[in-house]
Amino acid sequence: MTKQAAASESSCQIVRSLDAVGEKWSLLIVRNALRGQTRFSQFRDELGIPSDILTARLGTLVANGILEKRAYQEPGSRERSSYHLTERGQGLKLVMAAFMQWNDEFAPAPKGKASIMTDAATGEPVQLNWMGSSGEVLTTDDVAVAPGPAATSVWEPLT
Amino acid sequence: MTKQAAASESSCQIVRSLDAVGEKWSLLIVRNALRGQTRFSQFRDELGIPSDILTARLGTLVANGILEKRAYQEPGSRERSSYHLTERGQGLKLVMAAFMQWNDEFAPAPKGKASIMTDAATGEPVQLNWMGSSGEVLTTDDVAVAPGPAATSVWEPLT
Repeated sequence: MTKQAAASESSCQIVRSLDAVGEKWSLLIVRNALRGQTRFSQFRDELGIPSDILTARLGTLVANGILEKRAYQEPGSRERSSYHLTERGQGLKLVMAAFMQWNDEFAPAPKGKASIMTDAATGEPVQLNWMGSSGEVLTTDDVAVAPGPAATSVWEPLT
Repeated sequence: MTKQAAASESSCQIVRSLDAVGEKWSLLIVRNALRGQTRFSQFRDELGIPSDILTARLGTLVANGILEKRAYQEPGSRERSSYHLTERGQGLKLVMAAFMQWNDEFAPAPKGKASIMTDAATGEPVQLNWMGSSGEVLTTDDVAVAPGPAATSVWEPLT
């Protein structure tokens, strides 16, 4: 079950998402969780994040229902917690892939791609595409951000 | 022309993206720019962001080739700068839409959607879909993040 303890009060979906994961370390912890990491020491060593900040960020991600804690115990050690993506956390693949595709298009690293999105069954590459209501694929230029039913401000044409 | 003055040194596309826009105010400035805002006073008044922080964030977004500065002058006023999304900045629609869809699926606001993505020509809603190499639509569960050619760490199966 995902918890909503730290739910955002904004109606803007972007603000709501950023309230949940809009902090660089949080997104990088999720990235590493999507790579299969689950343990405090793995996140700390891989990310080089100070322990106190890692503890705080893991707590926020658990409170936001993105990670869930499970207990594990290795022989001769005390019981520790591991951290696993919830369904909501797995859903952040969408955000990660958007960041990846945006970077691949506009500012690719000279050494190539550190990660790719694949069809888990076949290993073939997949990508995010804009799709209209009748299934047609659209380009970025074809799409606009428009006020929804809960919009609170006046929007202006792009110039 | 987009500038790469503040290019990230990482190979990870997510780190590279976060180095460019991974800060809440930066993403909200881009959000408002996608709503058609161009002026310092619009961003300041709409976002409630302190002027010194707004100045710094606009400077970073310009340095990263996401916004470009243009001069404008109103009668009786001094010349001022307005800020317009570059092609790279427009590409962030993808990231905004990912945040929106993720929120819509897992933590929608009680009052409904503040914004929606539409086909600019028809006003019909559009969405981001995962698509395989032969054009088939996949679900989030179908896709995985996998190491790319520039991966530097060992990845583990998700548990």
